[in-house]
Amino acid sequence: MSKYFNSNIKINKKRLIKSIYKMAKIGQLNNGGCRRLAFSEEDFKAKKLLINWCTEIGLNVSMDPIGNLFAELKGKFKKNESIGIGSHLDTQPHGGKFDGAYGVLAGLEVIRTLVDNNIVPPKSIKLINWSNEEGCRFTPPLMGSSVYAKSIKLNHALKTLDKNHLKIENELQKKFPQDIKKIFNHKLESFIEIHIEQGPILEKSKKCIGIVTGAQGSRGLDVIIKGQDAHSGTTPMNLRKDTLIVAANFIQLFDKRARNLNCDLRATVGNILTSPGSRNTISGYTFFTIDIRHPRSIILDKMETCINKIASDLIKKYKISINIKKVYNLPTVNFNTKIQNIIENACNKLNYTKMKMISGAGHDAMSLAEKIPTGMIFIPCLNGISHNEKEHASDDDLEAGCNVLLHTILKLNDFKTIHTPHL
Amino acid sequence: MSKYFNSNIKINKKRLIKSIYKMAKIGQLNNGGCRRLAFSEEDFKAKKLLINWCTEIGLNVSMDPIGNLFAELKGKFKKNESIGIGSHLDTQPHGGKFDGAYGVLAGLEVIRTLVDNNIVPPKSIKLINWSNEEGCRFTPPLMGSSVYAKSIKLNHALKTLDKNHLKIENELQKKFPQDIKKIFNHKLESFIEIHIEQGPILEKSKKCIGIVTGAQGSRGLDVIIKGQDAHSGTTPMNLRKDTLIVAANFIQLFDKRARNLNCDLRATVGNILTSPGSRNTISGYTFFTIDIRHPRSIILDKMETCINKIASDLIKKYKISINIKKVYNLPTVNFNTKIQNIIENACNKLNYTKMKMISGAGHDAMSLAEKIPTGMIFIPCLNGISHNEKEHASDDDLEAGCNVLLHTILKLNDFKTIHTPHL
Repeated sequence: MSKYFNSNIKINKKRLIKSIYKMAKIGQLNNGGCRRLAFSEEDFKAKKLLINWCTEIGLNVSMDPIGNLFAELKGKFKKNESIGIGSHLDTQPHGGKFDGAYGVLAGLEVIRTLVDNNIVPPKSIKLINWSNEEGCRFTPPLMGSSVYAKSIKLNHALKTLDKNHLKIENELQKKFPQDIKKIFNHKLESFIEIHIEQGPILEKSKKCIGIVTGAQGSRGLDVIIKGQDAHSGTTPMNLRKDTLIVAANFIQLFDKRARNLNCDLRATVGNILTSPGSRNTISGYTFFTIDIRHPRSIILDKMETCINKIASDLIKKYKISINIKKVYNLPTVNFNTKIQNIIENACNKLNYTKMKMISGAGHDAMSLAEKIPTGMIFIPCLNGISHNEKEHASDDDLEAGCNVLLHTILKLNDFKTIHTPHL
Repeated sequence: MSKYFNSNIKINKKRLIKSIYKMAKIGQLNNGGCRRLAFSEEDFKAKKLLINWCTEIGLNVSMDPIGNLFAELKGKFKKNESIGIGSHLDTQPHGGKFDGAYGVLAGLEVIRTLVDNNIVPPKSIKLINWSNEEGCRFTPPLMGSSVYAKSIKLNHALKTLDKNHLKIENELQKKFPQDIKKIFNHKLESFIEIHIEQGPILEKSKKCIGIVTGAQGSRGLDVIIKGQDAHSGTTPMNLRKDTLIVAANFIQLFDKRARNLNCDLRATVGNILTSPGSRNTISGYTFFTIDIRHPRSIILDKMETCINKIASDLIKKYKISINIKKVYNLPTVNFNTKIQNIIENACNKLNYTKMKMISGAGHDAMSLAEKIPTGMIFIPCLNGISHNEKEHASDDDLEAGCNVLLHTILKLNDFKTIHTPHL
């Protein structure tokens, strides 16, 4: 039996919970949630609080050019390889306290526990706060981890604009902390992320820990409809080129087709903008977003075919222009089976109920999974609700997940290497 | 035969066109249109240009507490009664050069022509620029003229907020020109407005002048749908409370029912806002506007019944809250028949083709029609397009309409009084 895995150390529950609730004060909303949009003032305030906590325990903090934050606990080995743990501190516009923040602060708690116990593990541990996971201000989501994993080009990401035409490059230039080193190439041999499930499965199954075997594929589309602005009082119904009516028909059919296609399909229109947006003018321009997800890419292909068919039928019917642009395509992901086993053994050792499951949501771990051995741990959240201010996870579950993360990290140190690192 | 009506004077076409195109420079957009939202910087710049033009020819300029601008050419009579002419300088977000501005600047041209010809008419002529006719930034439309006509309370109007929570009262306080008198009670014995038709009827009928007999009724509703924010990747389709899907179904049914109910009904959803408005979150809140118009109130009643039925069916189907609020109800209006006859006689005298017609759009003249003798003159606009940057009216039609306005005003001076004034 190995040295590190057999250690009986536990994380400090009180300190973990305190950190989560302290972080939740940054960008706090009225109904218990948070608003820390990527690259906003609040996002950088959150990074600064994390930096303070990391430097307090002697971690070596740096950021890369897309704003991913790395805080290193040096291992005994001089080698460049290290184990990454972390998640993200950015949130949805009306986000919860736990989505992302839990993964970062559980990682911090694991390192604090190692420091408390004077454990210097063989491998360095890098706590990571990935930039712009949510992708709701700047598309696509998982941006920081995708740049790190080289599936998105840095220069391309830096040029991304938000809806007010602000550019990531300029936001970073203004807000990048002056006293933090900018380092490009952080080597990782493996990566572990812990997160709330954001769905109802663990709660319904009465299990404490989810061992995530993989994640469903996810595609993002933009739909742009162009017609003609006209007066709402004078323009007869049959002479209109009303893009909002076309959008309403599109969205209604999109929802209907998705419900009929496959019961595991998730199909969402999350945002719509119409122009000129005046109550007495017919809309000459409408834009909306599409998000579709499923564990099998063939179902996503079928849904895309449906979407294109809806568009071509509406173009014929309304003599209007509809343009569909694919803005991202995150493939189905399988997590490393050796790491799944390590997580399962940690659950057994700690006597936590567990189950294998796939992730419905997108996570930074998905960006890394194709490049290095990667694993994910889920804990339940109340009523499966997330991306909502009401999002909640119990203190006991937060503690349990963090202990599983700790013992997974300890066990990873027992292997000389999990796999030849790609990054 | 009377003295003033038999005058053969004509307006100065070149000066009229020059004024229209000069005014169009304020808030100019890229495709030939204008953006002068009510109470914006551009709106006040337009007022200031008008004030300069009016003071140049010795008119007495003042504004009332809602920002309606009055410029008076003193008549021979000392009596307080006067004839009002005018329209509005505010525009839609992507408005045209002629909607509103033509009516104000044709009124100015009429007064300039009287001054050129040293005509001092018996009655004072008041050129009026009504505040916030469009109602797209601050609801309802026809606000300034409705406050003047006492169908909206001044205090209520001043408290109106735009979508950024800016209040009219504060906007006026900041922007009200310091050197302009604030006067409350401008008496009018009659009011005449000239406007582009904003529809295709005159053009299709090959007529130069529309004698407007009345205007259709118009109602504004707000629809608010409340559901639940949730994660787009994890929330099964059958567990969602997605307000945007409900809105899409609502709008699609609304459009279908309106098309089937009556061929003269105009039914429009001009604006939609969804929250949190993130591509990977299900929308817990959606708001949209409804605008319905018809010459008969019974048809509008029927459409309102349809709208309430759609809402109650969707509430049942989706277990979601839908709230419908009526924000304005502008009744069907009939214009004064004596004034219609005067306009018709002016057309005959000037040899312009003409037809009687009703107005599809809302106009400030409608606010006044129930209180004092009021008339409206239309001229054609290209392809009937309005509330669009492409809006266009020919120089010849602009001239013709302005001459009809001039001779209508002259004739009104031949009557001792049209009617006992109410205002």
